[in-house]
Amino acid sequence: MFSSVLIANRGEIALRVARACRELGIRTVMVHSAADDHSPALRLADERVRIGPAPASRSYLYPPAILEAAERTGAEAVHPGYGFLSEDPEFAEMCEDQGLTFVGPPAAVLGRLGDKAEARRVASAAGLPVLPGSAHPLRNGSEAERVAGEVGYPVIIKAVAGGGGRGMAVVRHPRELAQAYSTTRVAAQTAFGDGRLYIERYVEGARHIEVQILADRHGNVLSLGERDCSVQRRRQKLIEETPAPGLPPALMAEICDAAVSGARAIGYVGAGTFEFVVDADGAFFFIEVNSRIQVEHPVTEMVTGVDLVREQLLIAGDRELALRDEDVVRRGVAIECRVNAEDPERGFLPTPGVVEEFTPPGGPFTRVDTHGAPGIRVTADYDSLLAKVIVSGQDRDHAIARMDRALAEFRVAGRGVRTTIGFLQEVLAHPLFQDAKHTTSLVDSMISL
Amino acid sequence: MFSSVLIANRGEIALRVARACRELGIRTVMVHSAADDHSPALRLADERVRIGPAPASRSYLYPPAILEAAERTGAEAVHPGYGFLSEDPEFAEMCEDQGLTFVGPPAAVLGRLGDKAEARRVASAAGLPVLPGSAHPLRNGSEAERVAGEVGYPVIIKAVAGGGGRGMAVVRHPRELAQAYSTTRVAAQTAFGDGRLYIERYVEGARHIEVQILADRHGNVLSLGERDCSVQRRRQKLIEETPAPGLPPALMAEICDAAVSGARAIGYVGAGTFEFVVDADGAFFFIEVNSRIQVEHPVTEMVTGVDLVREQLLIAGDRELALRDEDVVRRGVAIECRVNAEDPERGFLPTPGVVEEFTPPGGPFTRVDTHGAPGIRVTADYDSLLAKVIVSGQDRDHAIARMDRALAEFRVAGRGVRTTIGFLQEVLAHPLFQDAKHTTSLVDSMISL
Repeated sequence: MFSSVLIANRGEIALRVARACRELGIRTVMVHSAADDHSPALRLADERVRIGPAPASRSYLYPPAILEAAERTGAEAVHPGYGFLSEDPEFAEMCEDQGLTFVGPPAAVLGRLGDKAEARRVASAAGLPVLPGSAHPLRNGSEAERVAGEVGYPVIIKAVAGGGGRGMAVVRHPRELAQAYSTTRVAAQTAFGDGRLYIERYVEGARHIEVQILADRHGNVLSLGERDCSVQRRRQKLIEETPAPGLPPALMAEICDAAVSGARAIGYVGAGTFEFVVDADGAFFFIEVNSRIQVEHPVTEMVTGVDLVREQLLIAGDRELALRDEDVVRRGVAIECRVNAEDPERGFLPTPGVVEEFTPPGGPFTRVDTHGAPGIRVTADYDSLLAKVIVSGQDRDHAIARMDRALAEFRVAGRGVRTTIGFLQEVLAHPLFQDAKHTTSLVDSMISL
Repeated sequence: MFSSVLIANRGEIALRVARACRELGIRTVMVHSAADDHSPALRLADERVRIGPAPASRSYLYPPAILEAAERTGAEAVHPGYGFLSEDPEFAEMCEDQGLTFVGPPAAVLGRLGDKAEARRVASAAGLPVLPGSAHPLRNGSEAERVAGEVGYPVIIKAVAGGGGRGMAVVRHPRELAQAYSTTRVAAQTAFGDGRLYIERYVEGARHIEVQILADRHGNVLSLGERDCSVQRRRQKLIEETPAPGLPPALMAEICDAAVSGARAIGYVGAGTFEFVVDADGAFFFIEVNSRIQVEHPVTEMVTGVDLVREQLLIAGDRELALRDEDVVRRGVAIECRVNAEDPERGFLPTPGVVEEFTPPGGPFTRVDTHGAPGIRVTADYDSLLAKVIVSGQDRDHAIARMDRALAEFRVAGRGVRTTIGFLQEVLAHPLFQDAKHTTSLVDSMISL
């Protein structure tokens, strides 16, 4: 097992990893940009290295600076968190080349799953249901029109290099396809440096269901159950929960089994998530794999009692999974709300500024993962996630009441800073959410009112 | 079910109750003394009433002021928390006389269990093993000497009206008995207004084991398992955990069954705790009942997933327990550390003052119950509990490592204010604690070194 880890991330996930390391007796090195010089999160690291200026492209997304910090501090492993370089096969390879353990799947697996068209082929070959769509990246707009015609409208055009809800467009009529194709192509090229696209049938009124997987280097693959992440604004998750409410447990078990088959087929290693859509008839389809720890991992931790980041680290240290299927005892219902520094009154525009008051909620069965503190600066350089509030309850009604109580307690104030707390409470109170009859279009329908 | 509760307490337990009420949609009234005028805890109440000056005897221990506040605000129930009036049968009766629901056992049960000599008789009659000792309150010093001689030294002299580790003295030699008797008598008279004493054999090298009970008004009694509270300084608990480490599960099951029998025999209602000592040979003996929610209730909540304060409120609202034995799934290990504003370097003297920095730990499976916040004043008027840090882990080693991590994160600073955080870390690191071979004398032996 390695004895030191460089944390190549920031914000709440950097703290999350630092805590897991400390509990394992592992020394931590946190790298940070100049924008994060005064982040209270840095206190929890044993060592801190400033690796560059605020723009991520010159710090958190810049491998040479990170690898040099690892070299200089004698770090033996790198935990990439989520986002930034976490799913970059080249970065994983550079780490391994430098003798550093990359806490994540092997570079080859990252490469295959990062190509979303290839991931569809792998999943399909492993027997997972995939949506009708293109078998390969599209060569041009006219191929896109042909495939869309075969698949049937509505379709969704997605970036091969995308994922996490970015770089995609829904097309409802053939006449909109050419325009959507070229817009998405430019967007994908800009965002990911890769303009290749593919097409899938688009499922209206779907539920987003994903499965948490743990897989070690010794052939053991374990499912920790599903999460329902159907509350999304423009494909960005806002509220996640487990178990998936209002869906048959037998269907969830089937989806979990499918995820385990998929993980085995690709030789997955580490913590990962298989994402699916479930349509109104209860049919499910594989969408993509997130090859990293996810923002919403705490809901799974709360109902299973398993520390996923600890397991990630142990797996990277070559340990065999100590958990077996029968050890995974799921209990109660857990919900996470993402509190963003955004203004719901102004189209959810990020609100940079200095936080003056920051008092997160407390109490039983309530967890807040945050780097927030009085005095922190919310900057436009990074995403707007300020805190994750996670609660569990003996049943869903109780968990919802507890979340509402926790959000009501949360006090954030500062010049210019707004949060999504009030909006999240509106979603919790929505009859469709309360009755678990919501789909991925709930939030967009609330906003367009 | 009542729709409003007056919380007749302060500090972290007032917050704990307020949160449970809010999750049940119950309006809360918090009463407070002048010393607590600026307590941030008051923010979580729907209404606040100042009932008197700082001394508890004129506010938190003064029923007329509390009952008047209930009348004025239209509160329908009273939650007494722990300490103060929580086990006072007269207060319970006054509440009921005024038409208020007292969240706790009936006054008659409080009366019988509050008389510790009577509680021994009740327990013994219900078939619970009790330590050899006096069958009735002692009439005088010479009766004390006679009983001690029959019981065999060492013995412990206890106040009939005592409990919670106060008003007692261990006597190892007959020549010390007369002095101990009169000192304890005076102490008991001063502390409880009742100088009556009783004697029990004193068990050296014991473990303190207690059982959490829930009982409703419809005859259902449930055990939520044991807690080990053997880490004590002068009979005040510092660290509590569940399950009891290093003791046979079959013995624990037997003790839990005994507690359920005892609760049935006395007609217990509400949340309560049956306390036992376990000697070095694994024999167990009933000591007393705490007829209220306890400081250490969160460790049980963490391993069972049951919200004990919510259950208390539902029981007081006449609901039948929804939980059955088979619903109580215990998972993992939970530990609580009590962080006190005391100076371990100076004999654990309380350190009043103003807290300037207060940053409690966060992270997964970590809960902090506290009224602490930057700017709060720690006053000598009340006990020195500043925060409870509670963690759970998949096994005991992990839970200990997590607690050590959490305590290391906890930052409290202020002029004059000291805490027991460092001392708690020393206890966690002690080989006897790590190997679960400690007894109730561990801490006193560490201090006397």
